[in-house]
Amino acid sequence: MPRENLRQLADELRAEMIDAVSVTGGHLGAGLGVVELTVALHAVFDTPHDRIIWDVGHQAYPHKILTGRRDRMRTLRQKDGLSGFTRRAESEYDPFGAGHSSTSISAGLGMAVASDLMDKPRNVVAVIGDGAMSAGMAYEAMNNAGAMDARLIVVLNDNDMSIAPPTGALRTYLARLVSGPVYRGTREAAKTVVSKLPKMLYEPARKTEEFARSFFTGGTLFEELGFYYIGPVDGHDLENLLPIFENVRDAETGPILIHLVTQKGKGYAPAEHSADKYHGVSKFNVITGAQAKAPSNAPSYTNVFAETLIQEANDDPRIVAVTAAMPTGTGLDKFAEVHPSRIFDVGIAEQHAVTFAAGMASEGMKPFVAIYSTFLQRAYDQVVHDVAIQHLPVRFAIDRAGYVGADGPTHAGNYDAAYLGAIPGIVQMAAADEAELRHMVATAAAYDNGPIAFRYPRGEGMGVDMPARGEKLAIGKGRIVRQGATIAILSYGTRLAEVLAAADKLAALGLNPTIADARFLKPLDEELIAKLATTHDVLLTTEEGSIGGFGSHVATFLASNGLLDGKLRFRPLMIPDRFDEHASQSDMYAAAGLDRAGIVTTALTTLGYDEAAMAAALGKTS
Amino acid sequence: MPRENLRQLADELRAEMIDAVSVTGGHLGAGLGVVELTVALHAVFDTPHDRIIWDVGHQAYPHKILTGRRDRMRTLRQKDGLSGFTRRAESEYDPFGAGHSSTSISAGLGMAVASDLMDKPRNVVAVIGDGAMSAGMAYEAMNNAGAMDARLIVVLNDNDMSIAPPTGALRTYLARLVSGPVYRGTREAAKTVVSKLPKMLYEPARKTEEFARSFFTGGTLFEELGFYYIGPVDGHDLENLLPIFENVRDAETGPILIHLVTQKGKGYAPAEHSADKYHGVSKFNVITGAQAKAPSNAPSYTNVFAETLIQEANDDPRIVAVTAAMPTGTGLDKFAEVHPSRIFDVGIAEQHAVTFAAGMASEGMKPFVAIYSTFLQRAYDQVVHDVAIQHLPVRFAIDRAGYVGADGPTHAGNYDAAYLGAIPGIVQMAAADEAELRHMVATAAAYDNGPIAFRYPRGEGMGVDMPARGEKLAIGKGRIVRQGATIAILSYGTRLAEVLAAADKLAALGLNPTIADARFLKPLDEELIAKLATTHDVLLTTEEGSIGGFGSHVATFLASNGLLDGKLRFRPLMIPDRFDEHASQSDMYAAAGLDRAGIVTTALTTLGYDEAAMAAALGKTS
Repeated sequence: MPRENLRQLADELRAEMIDAVSVTGGHLGAGLGVVELTVALHAVFDTPHDRIIWDVGHQAYPHKILTGRRDRMRTLRQKDGLSGFTRRAESEYDPFGAGHSSTSISAGLGMAVASDLMDKPRNVVAVIGDGAMSAGMAYEAMNNAGAMDARLIVVLNDNDMSIAPPTGALRTYLARLVSGPVYRGTREAAKTVVSKLPKMLYEPARKTEEFARSFFTGGTLFEELGFYYIGPVDGHDLENLLPIFENVRDAETGPILIHLVTQKGKGYAPAEHSADKYHGVSKFNVITGAQAKAPSNAPSYTNVFAETLIQEANDDPRIVAVTAAMPTGTGLDKFAEVHPSRIFDVGIAEQHAVTFAAGMASEGMKPFVAIYSTFLQRAYDQVVHDVAIQHLPVRFAIDRAGYVGADGPTHAGNYDAAYLGAIPGIVQMAAADEAELRHMVATAAAYDNGPIAFRYPRGEGMGVDMPARGEKLAIGKGRIVRQGATIAILSYGTRLAEVLAAADKLAALGLNPTIADARFLKPLDEELIAKLATTHDVLLTTEEGSIGGFGSHVATFLASNGLLDGKLRFRPLMIPDRFDEHASQSDMYAAAGLDRAGIVTTALTTLGYDEAAMAAALGKTS
Repeated sequence: MPRENLRQLADELRAEMIDAVSVTGGHLGAGLGVVELTVALHAVFDTPHDRIIWDVGHQAYPHKILTGRRDRMRTLRQKDGLSGFTRRAESEYDPFGAGHSSTSISAGLGMAVASDLMDKPRNVVAVIGDGAMSAGMAYEAMNNAGAMDARLIVVLNDNDMSIAPPTGALRTYLARLVSGPVYRGTREAAKTVVSKLPKMLYEPARKTEEFARSFFTGGTLFEELGFYYIGPVDGHDLENLLPIFENVRDAETGPILIHLVTQKGKGYAPAEHSADKYHGVSKFNVITGAQAKAPSNAPSYTNVFAETLIQEANDDPRIVAVTAAMPTGTGLDKFAEVHPSRIFDVGIAEQHAVTFAAGMASEGMKPFVAIYSTFLQRAYDQVVHDVAIQHLPVRFAIDRAGYVGADGPTHAGNYDAAYLGAIPGIVQMAAADEAELRHMVATAAAYDNGPIAFRYPRGEGMGVDMPARGEKLAIGKGRIVRQGATIAILSYGTRLAEVLAAADKLAALGLNPTIADARFLKPLDEELIAKLATTHDVLLTTEEGSIGGFGSHVATFLASNGLLDGKLRFRPLMIPDRFDEHASQSDMYAAAGLDRAGIVTTALTTLGYDEAAMAAALGKTS
């Protein structure tokens, strides 16, 4: 495509993206900010032979449109549709999938090294945001790349935003670079790079430590980490971007960092003027920007957590809250309004978040780390080493536990019960509904004898009556919700509502099951479980988690104590051992057999009904 | 203590430490390097009210001697003796335990913030090595601290070593700082700081972004991250250290970084002249430095892994190896000798290591990440998100799996089977002996259909005959090792030898158990397990791992498939759900009931023998 048409292409791309996301909802602001960057990269580099890695793939919508997926854009994040992130299986133009941030430099360095070792020359470009740069993983990769001669191009997309505005010293530092006098003369400077860079790159004598590795500005932190630094550059000006990318393409040099300044939400007024720059949106009206809100029946678990934590913090000055760059997603933005000096947004830095909380706990504070299940994976060692081994009372509020729907497998909150369950000494709870969540926040606030965690899912509560204040639960004690016979179902977490619905169906068949809410995975309520096991013929467990979690812990307890030696038929129901693609949460539960129909079916087959008898029986009740 | 006596104290401290470690073995080099630092910190700061946090606590031996533990130094790393690391439960002078590196700044920042919030003024000093600074977690903490006004003092102990010499751009950068002209004039400069620092600290008008935050050298990376930088300073010269620490003590300012240059192994000639600076030593002769070597009966698992990987790499140029700063511990130093261009030591940077390997795998390389079980915890999210979801064939060689003996709970390799087991699509193996390990390395090299992991313990193999080359195992297939009846024992990993010994004891009682080696946790050999379950009265599993691992997976499989509905008595034996203090590995297995005696006891009690009958029966065989 002739260069003079690229501006027009960018404009069309932006319009198409706005239109597509208005239909599907999804991530909008990040993609709008990288439209020109996307066009420039594809104009200059030879993809898919050259590799472009989009950090946190949600900025890759324009890239998807340009790489053969335009006609599928309106299936974004729908069942069987395009992923909301980059995905290897989706396109050869997606060399590396990403849903979590800050992975692109590591992956890109691996590709660059492989390119060298296999003698298959290619360019590798990692595009990473300034927010993502606060993660230690990005620094580890920079530190490693800076010491190697690998050919890697890092594009730092500096829009002064992650989801929330980024925090940390790096943000201040980047702002200082951008506010320097040189940025204002970028257009002239870009021309200078064109004439200057090749000389430097092809004169080995000048590639020494002493040679200044910086263009435009003076010495930078990135040079000190061994990168050639180019910038800051206006990331919406193709006149700047094209010559710079042409220049670094195929250059025989070590790693290069190009610092682009962009605007999140660029070119769509409602996004530009919104506080979150339309980071993630529901369906919206293109003209007005008004987002469709699904009618809400019950408060979200996130809000119940936040409101309850505020209540507890009002009474206890030792309570503080920690988030890793997710104040809105975790509800802590509300906490910040009431207790601004007691919330700590540490940036995209989960490892630090947990140990920072451990440090506060060691001094007698009561830190709540509010974090998604999938992101707590980033701090697993810190939970083991800094919290659990030291028995420090850090509280983990684990949001988005279980299926997450449209965000797909990269964000699945399926594993926390298993990975925390293996660690000694952490009290683990799951809330059956929003009232239970309130009790668990209160329980965690009161519990000072070691680490404690409670998990709750994405989305709305059950609409149950809410107690004004949370009550302290007895540690390690579940509750019988419905007393019956023959079949017992022990639920851990919010599957309880489906279990109760299944119980109604079973009752209509003349079977009256006992239903219990375990509340705790650790310590297990051994007394309750032993009683259920010894007074029923069939015991099922349900949970919104993987193998290794609640059901596996119950199985291990039952077996180790001889409770399975007799005729008890025990069936643990759990999320199947596979990565589920994005779909609605309800579809995912049904596919996993964790909805009421699946629970009834398992109960009946375990009792010995054959398929025909079951169908007949179920027909009677439907 | 009068200042003029501190030099003498330091000399005595060094002599005492050498003498103590010569008796116990342990970490020597790091402690020798911080003798003067330890003396200076305790002379200037008011511990335990002020907090001193030693990153990777193994440098804290001199600190232990100075803080009331001198008389117990010769119990170091012994059962019921002092820990080899800092430990909160051991002393009020250990405000934060550490065994893994790079946690101290996060913990210290948490303490500093707590001190502010609780209005309990105190100094917090985090001492961290230059190697530990390569970890992303340290950067996350610096980035966070640099943006806050928290009073935190970071002492960067730059000895140009972690265990191996550090890698990465930061090392080059620090070397450049140290080689600058100013360092040579440190003594004079230290005096200058004394007169200069208070002015700066107490004149708010000068505490602006524009004010250079650096002493001695020009602008540094640390200033750019928001720290006041002081250094480089000779870390063995008390004349430098004391005035600087007095100066920063109680200063009303934001975070300060003091860059000390020290020598690992300082003051003990054999350590100074050794390549690893006596990082970790066995008992040694103080005069000659000669270390006692325990007689070796069999090759270590680590060596078998390394030798086999070299064999495989000789035949397959796509094989590469990755280590996070542990080339010696993982045996990859040997690989480096043969294939220097195909090994990547990325520094203490486990997150990056795994995703870097994923990047290479995405291009068709065959990366082996050689890592201890306990350190793979640092890269858990990367295993889920970058490797498993993308089904990339990264190979994980998991060393030090299971009990690790003297290193204690911070290094326990107990959890990998559980935390990896929860992740879909990772093939997981455990080697029963060193020959099996050889086969598993070969199997992993040949397997290209997704991620694969194999675990093996610390220490020596069983002394079995070694095959010249590894053979490719059938994925998901175990093996019957001994065919018997009534009792079946299914072993996962190196407990097999004890299981076979237990079988001999049982055979002497007239019970002839079936013994199987599972080889795979995932995929489980369901056929084998079902067969064992349906043809025996009792089934035991054994493993060197926690709840949620092999036994829990078998329990879940058995329950889900109705194999526990009948009269089978199933007992999963595993590492108990508690943090075990340091002791010998054999003591730990005995305490866990995972030695031959424990296995026999469980088999007999499960069969229904009561204690008296069992004692009588066992008496016959002993």
